[in-house]
Amino acid sequence: MRVSVRLMSFGLMSFGLLLLALPGFALANQSLRVEPPFWWVGMRDPSLQLMIHAPDIAKAEARSVSKDVTITAQHRLSSPNYLFVDLVIAADTAPGTVSLELTRDGQSVAQIEYPLQARRKGSADRVGFGPQDAIYLLVPDRFANGDPRNDNSADTLEKIDRSKPGGRHGGDLAGMSQALPYLADLGITQIWPTPLVENDMPAYSYHGYAPTDLYRIDPRFGSNEDYRAFVAAAGQRGIGVIQDIVLNHIGSHHHWLRDPPSADWINGNGQFSPTTHARTTVQDRYAAAVDRDEFLQGWFVETMPDLNQRNPFLATYLIQNSLWWIEYADLSGIREDTYPYSEPDFLARWSKRIVQEYPSFSIVGEEWSRNPTIVSHWQANAGQSRHADSATNAMMDFPLYYELSEALAQDDGQKALDRLYQALVNDALYPAPERMVLFDGNHDTPRLYSLLGEDQGRYRAALTYLLTLPRTPQLFYGSEVAMSSPVERDDGRVRGDFPGGWAGDKVNGFTGAGLTDTARRTQQLVRSLLRFRRSSSALTRGDLIHFLPKDGVYVFARRSAEQTVLVAINRSAMEQTLDARRFREALGDAGELLDVLDQTRVDLGQGIRVPADDIRVLESTSAPQR
Amino acid sequence: MRVSVRLMSFGLMSFGLLLLALPGFALANQSLRVEPPFWWVGMRDPSLQLMIHAPDIAKAEARSVSKDVTITAQHRLSSPNYLFVDLVIAADTAPGTVSLELTRDGQSVAQIEYPLQARRKGSADRVGFGPQDAIYLLVPDRFANGDPRNDNSADTLEKIDRSKPGGRHGGDLAGMSQALPYLADLGITQIWPTPLVENDMPAYSYHGYAPTDLYRIDPRFGSNEDYRAFVAAAGQRGIGVIQDIVLNHIGSHHHWLRDPPSADWINGNGQFSPTTHARTTVQDRYAAAVDRDEFLQGWFVETMPDLNQRNPFLATYLIQNSLWWIEYADLSGIREDTYPYSEPDFLARWSKRIVQEYPSFSIVGEEWSRNPTIVSHWQANAGQSRHADSATNAMMDFPLYYELSEALAQDDGQKALDRLYQALVNDALYPAPERMVLFDGNHDTPRLYSLLGEDQGRYRAALTYLLTLPRTPQLFYGSEVAMSSPVERDDGRVRGDFPGGWAGDKVNGFTGAGLTDTARRTQQLVRSLLRFRRSSSALTRGDLIHFLPKDGVYVFARRSAEQTVLVAINRSAMEQTLDARRFREALGDAGELLDVLDQTRVDLGQGIRVPADDIRVLESTSAPQR
Repeated sequence: MRVSVRLMSFGLMSFGLLLLALPGFALANQSLRVEPPFWWVGMRDPSLQLMIHAPDIAKAEARSVSKDVTITAQHRLSSPNYLFVDLVIAADTAPGTVSLELTRDGQSVAQIEYPLQARRKGSADRVGFGPQDAIYLLVPDRFANGDPRNDNSADTLEKIDRSKPGGRHGGDLAGMSQALPYLADLGITQIWPTPLVENDMPAYSYHGYAPTDLYRIDPRFGSNEDYRAFVAAAGQRGIGVIQDIVLNHIGSHHHWLRDPPSADWINGNGQFSPTTHARTTVQDRYAAAVDRDEFLQGWFVETMPDLNQRNPFLATYLIQNSLWWIEYADLSGIREDTYPYSEPDFLARWSKRIVQEYPSFSIVGEEWSRNPTIVSHWQANAGQSRHADSATNAMMDFPLYYELSEALAQDDGQKALDRLYQALVNDALYPAPERMVLFDGNHDTPRLYSLLGEDQGRYRAALTYLLTLPRTPQLFYGSEVAMSSPVERDDGRVRGDFPGGWAGDKVNGFTGAGLTDTARRTQQLVRSLLRFRRSSSALTRGDLIHFLPKDGVYVFARRSAEQTVLVAINRSAMEQTLDARRFREALGDAGELLDVLDQTRVDLGQGIRVPADDIRVLESTSAPQR
Repeated sequence: MRVSVRLMSFGLMSFGLLLLALPGFALANQSLRVEPPFWWVGMRDPSLQLMIHAPDIAKAEARSVSKDVTITAQHRLSSPNYLFVDLVIAADTAPGTVSLELTRDGQSVAQIEYPLQARRKGSADRVGFGPQDAIYLLVPDRFANGDPRNDNSADTLEKIDRSKPGGRHGGDLAGMSQALPYLADLGITQIWPTPLVENDMPAYSYHGYAPTDLYRIDPRFGSNEDYRAFVAAAGQRGIGVIQDIVLNHIGSHHHWLRDPPSADWINGNGQFSPTTHARTTVQDRYAAAVDRDEFLQGWFVETMPDLNQRNPFLATYLIQNSLWWIEYADLSGIREDTYPYSEPDFLARWSKRIVQEYPSFSIVGEEWSRNPTIVSHWQANAGQSRHADSATNAMMDFPLYYELSEALAQDDGQKALDRLYQALVNDALYPAPERMVLFDGNHDTPRLYSLLGEDQGRYRAALTYLLTLPRTPQLFYGSEVAMSSPVERDDGRVRGDFPGGWAGDKVNGFTGAGLTDTARRTQQLVRSLLRFRRSSSALTRGDLIHFLPKDGVYVFARRSAEQTVLVAINRSAMEQTLDARRFREALGDAGELLDVLDQTRVDLGQGIRVPADDIRVLESTSAPQR
């Protein structure tokens, strides 16, 4: 009966999915798709739901040919072109392939050789990112163009055009891989690239937030294998990779728009209706359901259709897609985009399923609000939250980011520091404040250096605060060389090309060539702090004690069992000598401290000198008194 | 042995404390003071600590002559002039007096006939103020001068001077009593007068926040008996009285400054050192102890010495003083001034002791912050709080007050309403948001009418929001007649004399004579809403569902089992007709509503018309669908 055995020629080919096409079944090469394209043996939850997409496939029936795989259910939605097959994989299944036969009217029409791979050793026990880390956010298209050959690809629409702020500039995984020595040297321990999955949109697709294939790395960045190799190479240097995942929406050129599995797959039944952006509706105890629905089910923009995660098949598809990338690429975390725009019940289920497989994994969600009540709502175990059963253990710390960027932009240094001091009272709302990801900026905010008036002193204060607080710090690429931008939102320019990432760049942040004094001095500060931080128990695990800002100086201390680190931020225009006795609660009877940045010793009996408009970071050289 | 029996001539006389002075003991009339001046039988906690103040009294020994009273301990602090006597009153003690004998060197030197009164029937079960109420805050000196004979008193320093904004203007308890019919007619159910206790300071003493005798009503307001009679008269009209109690400080002319019971009775050992006002230090998990101490132990201002509630005798004194006023005056609540400035452990103990005696009592604290994290911290059972074991069940809702006053001051009506809508997401932080006391203003804030640019539409919107939200609303005296003030803080003018409170006033808010159209229209709105509110189960007990503001109109509904009330605030310049179908979740299939203000009927099939720049309050006339 079997007439041909051939590999599929579309994107899934590379994963080794084997399809046996049989006569009497209209099966073109490009038209059959099985997702996830493969899976693993030995997952804690042995169930798997395959989405099989082919013309009229709903008329077929699946049958397991392998004893290790049991089909427990098959589902057909309103489209004739999708078949959902629920599998259970036996616990002792050996890696390899399992066979599924598709029949129609009793006739075998196709056979799928479905790969079940072995898991990486220790995969389930991977430790996600956290306060021990420093995250580097980069926009792959704008970071480094390591391989100009993939600037364009035959099967994607938009071509490179560096002259356009919103165009594709050619950055790629090859460039990111080449930058790994630089990032490791800088002291970075986690990289968060904006989404790398295919965004085959006609324009404005470089940012990655309009996915058109959730299982494929965009060919202009590289292949799936390139991505996996990049993560492995990063891992070799002690750097983890956080994948940016979009659960809320897809790009309008995703094939689901042309052929949705069901009418309710896309919110609005596939017709554009904008979201109200009324994010509070999902946590506000008084919100009307009609408003919650309009918010959740409206589309972000017309080019980003909104997924309906209330559809259980879509929910399962998205959950499996996340698990697939973690296991396939060997991730250390997920950054979840536009967090509150997805269905809250789904988010809880999604996150809990992930930590079921990876109990020490980390997920950080984006809730763009300056209100800590709203942001803390989403952190797992938040006492005041209606959705506390989620397993999302971190959120982007927009509230503290706003305090940081707005406070230090003030001329009055004392008021600036008072504001930073007072902001931390909100930590009462967070079950784990140290897991909150505090950032100096991201791809949606103006560059902090510019927001602070390109003032070196303020910028150094901000970076020091960011890297020494009990938080999980995140730097935006280029912050270390004081990249600037307009102070009003201007995405294309905020996401500027990193200097040195393109052949012929006269300025090179990687080598230091051509950097201004400010850029070089900033890079030196960041490198010193990050390297120190990496091995500092006080900064990564210690508690915090802070002192009320006085005379324009804010002093705080981080303390572990082994180490105390004292940070002093002087926002006054005068050098200040601080009486160390005021900090006895933090310093005990230490007699001297070591300056982390210049390695000089500070005799506490002489007071702590802090230069005008600058910072000091000092380490205790004797065991702290607790 | 007994040579004379006489009543003391000072303030305590009126309470009937009987002192038997004996020869051989230097006891002048004015020089012996026992506090509390009397107590009650049948309290849940039978213990009582008397503070006896007289020259060299520490050398004396107390002995109980009555079988019903046991002395369990006697304490002497650093001053020779105080003796603290711990008593336990037997459970079955009959009301009357009990005798305590004071001896010195074995010689009886004095006998105190200490009154133990019967408690009012049901005293322990009194129900405190809450969302069923509307509170009227008044400044007694500025509300109504009912008895010009007490404008000055022989034993107090400052004399009346109505020409001074910061002087005494003559208002008194007699004026408040005369106003009770007006307030009852207006729909008020609770009165909160700023402190009435003696403030015998040389100047700026009309406000009451610098107490010089914690057991005496200031004679310029009336006597203790006048106060008790006022509360009783208010009660006859269904109005409760909330006493404003200051635990943090006293006035600098209090006799404790001249003769403190111990060196640590006043913080700073009686020497002025200002508080840092760094209120977050007491709840900030990272705050240094040195900063917390400087905040808590510094004085508010030099004329208001800071009490050290860590001293257990002072703590007991303050607790008993609060209990004494509740029982003596028959209060329905306490408003506690400058809440975070007192020791948090003491506040918890104080509040718990009060609800031990009065389980349904209400206490509202003042934490002047716009941050709901900070304010919610103090409400009893706040999950995120380090001090959740307090029994203070309400706080002044400064965060929502700021939203209200600032949002409605904006020209953009849609933005104003969006801000009000979003503010309620913070209710997640409050264990009981409906107990939070929301206000249109207080004695420390500019008049809301002025903050809103004396714009009638905005002001009507604000008052309607205030009186229909799930909150315990508080109106500042004169708000109902649209009193105005400078928009920058100006205490003397904010606390202006209520029109009609002084003989010869041409304008009279009580009678309506001479009121402007705006004042009359405002008073009519307040009266209508308060009267409706008083008997509305939806407004006082119902839940809330609110709808995202659209086209400059904010609609929300309060719903009880029996009633639905729909509130529409139109901040646009156009009349709007709302499609009632959008509110089906709140209205069920009600066909018509009744306008609470003009009693017209609204046919929902025709939509809900809301006049430009105005409000509507509509009541369901059919049972709601839930």
